[in-house]
Amino acid sequence: MPEPIEGLREVLKKLPGIGPRSALRLVQYLMRHPTLLGGLSDALSRAAEEVDTCPECGFWKEKAQPLCPICADPRREEPTLCVVREITDLIAIEQAGVFRGHYHVLGGVLDPLSGIGEKDLRLDSLWKRLRQNTYQEVILALGTSPEAETTAYYIVRSLSDWNGKVTRLASGIPVGTDLAYVDALTLVRCLRDRQSFQV
Amino acid sequence: MPEPIEGLREVLKKLPGIGPRSALRLVQYLMRHPTLLGGLSDALSRAAEEVDTCPECGFWKEKAQPLCPICADPRREEPTLCVVREITDLIAIEQAGVFRGHYHVLGGVLDPLSGIGEKDLRLDSLWKRLRQNTYQEVILALGTSPEAETTAYYIVRSLSDWNGKVTRLASGIPVGTDLAYVDALTLVRCLRDRQSFQV
Repeated sequence: MPEPIEGLREVLKKLPGIGPRSALRLVQYLMRHPTLLGGLSDALSRAAEEVDTCPECGFWKEKAQPLCPICADPRREEPTLCVVREITDLIAIEQAGVFRGHYHVLGGVLDPLSGIGEKDLRLDSLWKRLRQNTYQEVILALGTSPEAETTAYYIVRSLSDWNGKVTRLASGIPVGTDLAYVDALTLVRCLRDRQSFQV
Repeated sequence: MPEPIEGLREVLKKLPGIGPRSALRLVQYLMRHPTLLGGLSDALSRAAEEVDTCPECGFWKEKAQPLCPICADPRREEPTLCVVREITDLIAIEQAGVFRGHYHVLGGVLDPLSGIGEKDLRLDSLWKRLRQNTYQEVILALGTSPEAETTAYYIVRSLSDWNGKVTRLASGIPVGTDLAYVDALTLVRCLRDRQSFQV
């Protein structure tokens, strides 16, 4: 294959979920659709040039702006900080459209086996935000993996002298799922956390 | 989301096999790996600037070269032209490493329902190559879909006054597949095309 094609394929193969075959399929599709190829190249350059990370929450922001659209929004008055693992988690919660507080993107969870320790996460900036602002609640929305649980406990312990509430997202049966398909651990937890029926 | 991020996501969503979720996952991965992001942008520009289509066979070639590496290779002496649907098919056959003739990429197959007619395929250049060269055989390697079969018959009929052999790839049981998993149509065909046992 011509070298530039081989080069493009090699780069595409490095993306998550894209193997040698789909990389080649993408190359073929892009070479057939020059407008799309050019558009992708431009969109990548623009993202690299114009976007960086919000110093407050860790979400994406335009470089020209001091803060991301969420941190800069004066209508977000709920004195609550929602701690998430990744930007995609922030977007998922944001799309649910009910949370009106701020976010804090950790950038991962503690995972000693993979060499991810406290210094690799945005924990210092979390403590700093909680000292400097008047948040009354921290919601831990880190997921349910063992590493996420450990990280949640670590944060709770570190916040033991902080003057606010620390909560976590309810874990239980997803809306629309049949009981028969729910795993035992989830059932244990949703029995333990059962709630009084409200009419 | 910042506009450049939304723009990048929109472009990625247009690629085959990439939906809204995987597009966002790719954006996040790329923003976290700036070298990869830059590398992809560069690789795309290079491919767009330096690669076009071989006027002979339709494979990719470097713009600086008159022909693709396969058409330019003097060691490919077999007087056989293998007609394939897409560049990815050419690459698949090439990777098998046994074919020493030339290729002709049609760029699709006849498909009236999708509005793909003779003028949309590289058929004129196929007739021209067969007139101008000394090929002794055309191998039709277009696949087994109804549209591919129709296209194969169309080519065979158009070549009725051409002085060479027209063949097609054997269709049958893939190597390593159990009989029980082979569909009825394939079984019909591999019974019809059964071959004498050679020892």
